[in-house]
Amino acid sequence: MSELRKDPVVDRWVIMSEERAVRPSDFSTHAIKTSKTACPFCSGNEHYTPSEVFADRPDQSAANKPGWKLRVVPNKFPALATTPHADVRHHHFFSSHNGYGRHEVIVETPVHGVGPSDLSVSDHECILKAYRHRLLDMQRDPRLAYALLFKNHGALAGATVDHTHSQMIATPIVPFAVEEELRSARDYHADKQECVYCRLLKEETSDGTRLIGENDAFVAIQAFASRFPCETWILPKRHTSHFELHPENEMSLLAGLMKETFQRLHRALDDPPFNTVIHSAPLRDRSHDTCYHWHIEILPKLTQVAGYEWGSGVFINPLLPEQAAQSLRQVTLS
Amino acid sequence: MSELRKDPVVDRWVIMSEERAVRPSDFSTHAIKTSKTACPFCSGNEHYTPSEVFADRPDQSAANKPGWKLRVVPNKFPALATTPHADVRHHHFFSSHNGYGRHEVIVETPVHGVGPSDLSVSDHECILKAYRHRLLDMQRDPRLAYALLFKNHGALAGATVDHTHSQMIATPIVPFAVEEELRSARDYHADKQECVYCRLLKEETSDGTRLIGENDAFVAIQAFASRFPCETWILPKRHTSHFELHPENEMSLLAGLMKETFQRLHRALDDPPFNTVIHSAPLRDRSHDTCYHWHIEILPKLTQVAGYEWGSGVFINPLLPEQAAQSLRQVTLS
Repeated sequence: MSELRKDPVVDRWVIMSEERAVRPSDFSTHAIKTSKTACPFCSGNEHYTPSEVFADRPDQSAANKPGWKLRVVPNKFPALATTPHADVRHHHFFSSHNGYGRHEVIVETPVHGVGPSDLSVSDHECILKAYRHRLLDMQRDPRLAYALLFKNHGALAGATVDHTHSQMIATPIVPFAVEEELRSARDYHADKQECVYCRLLKEETSDGTRLIGENDAFVAIQAFASRFPCETWILPKRHTSHFELHPENEMSLLAGLMKETFQRLHRALDDPPFNTVIHSAPLRDRSHDTCYHWHIEILPKLTQVAGYEWGSGVFINPLLPEQAAQSLRQVTLS
Repeated sequence: MSELRKDPVVDRWVIMSEERAVRPSDFSTHAIKTSKTACPFCSGNEHYTPSEVFADRPDQSAANKPGWKLRVVPNKFPALATTPHADVRHHHFFSSHNGYGRHEVIVETPVHGVGPSDLSVSDHECILKAYRHRLLDMQRDPRLAYALLFKNHGALAGATVDHTHSQMIATPIVPFAVEEELRSARDYHADKQECVYCRLLKEETSDGTRLIGENDAFVAIQAFASRFPCETWILPKRHTSHFELHPENEMSLLAGLMKETFQRLHRALDDPPFNTVIHSAPLRDRSHDTCYHWHIEILPKLTQVAGYEWGSGVFINPLLPEQAAQSLRQVTLS
């Protein structure tokens, strides 16, 4: 069984993941993980994964057989366990939660060896539709408060399987980083009667120095206070709190801008490791509708996060976002 | 000139470090940094560094010459610039600060190739006294609000020079992670009329399952909600808010427990990369004296921080701290 533990001082949770349990002697810093077996995410290897919970099968092929364009399966080594209750346990001083939740893998393509910059706009649209489907499904479980969609690309960004995929972790708690964004957006709205992200969009599109892409419905920028070199945010122009509530007919425009942005990063930085995170309001919670605005963050991992960052929460970035934007705009797209 | 920028939404600062400026094409993910020149921190190579600001020279040798046991120098590639003003600039919407500050390197030994577990108790005492000296010196600059002492050990923990050293970054702002700890400690004290760290010490010493070392003045534990496998905290038994105000005569006991703890980690985890951070109250600020309690965190880097952690602030740890403590207690010390 997994366990969620809260730090006794600050509002920080940790998932103690027994499914992935190790002993100290299992860690070998110098070893590089290599794939020893057949890829569990390739077409034809469906039996290596748990049964699919969603798939895009244009040819109406049978579940857990080849023929799919995209496949969602429970993670074989989930961070959280699908045990029935989500009780908070308070010891005298320490608090923990039993580690109920969902951990799924979105296999983005049956083809091995292609990355997000290689996938077609239609592939990206298919991925975005899968994200929407999984979020709408998580909404139906009243024990879950939040579902986070993310992608780890490259070993240095935490990917343990090469074959391109995203993940979803759904928890009975709203994570701290999300709470903090919601609180800040709510405070800004109370003060200025305006959504902080709508204001950010106005500033960035009129200034233009950090803009790297734009279409009728979405904008891609370099973040003003980028923690990482080439930290990229993609925001919808339409104010919407939840990714899964965004009008479906705009998803093809998002897919187009995603593909373009991944190409820019791939070409300017030579296929960098990166993390992508969907920032969206909590499941079923409509109290943030006027002040929160979902968006996507793409975080390239070209610098080490070290003692200063861990101790302070302040990041050191050697590349000005305005310079990054200039380089990224100059990339020739295909 | 460096610049401190605040995220337009959350209370997160970033140091844009022009002294370390790069272009996107300078990043090469696959390259491993190797030392091409003589080590700037070795005895005899003092001319490679800026002039020392502090040194332990038992033989009364001349500054910037061999003969030292420990040496503190300004960082040759500082994250922050020593420009005169510390003004906050508000653009219409974005806030920044000019990047005034101090960035120093504490060269912990003249000998190349030894690590913190090899250094003697007397070496560790000498390092702790240098920390104290630098913090007391930073207190004299009214433009500085906080000074953070940290250590990166191993390339995977962000060390770019092999020769064992710590660093200090002093800023005109109190970093967010520090503010958050102070706020949480203050809230706990207001609620329970007790220091949360004093309470933690009582719980951990009476329970004992996470305890890995103890002497008359200090305790070493595995953190209850460890973000990282073998995350270790060292706390003074005596309630003190500031590291630099802790009674000097207890530093030899701290040095002894530091050496012992580094040995346990080194032996159980085969010389792991790690970060060490001193958590202490802001410079000159005595308003936290009753509720804050300085301590040291040692964070081994054996797992990748990936998309889920960046998006949620929730960490996934595959090793229970109680199991880690058991293994670390079993290490034979020399």
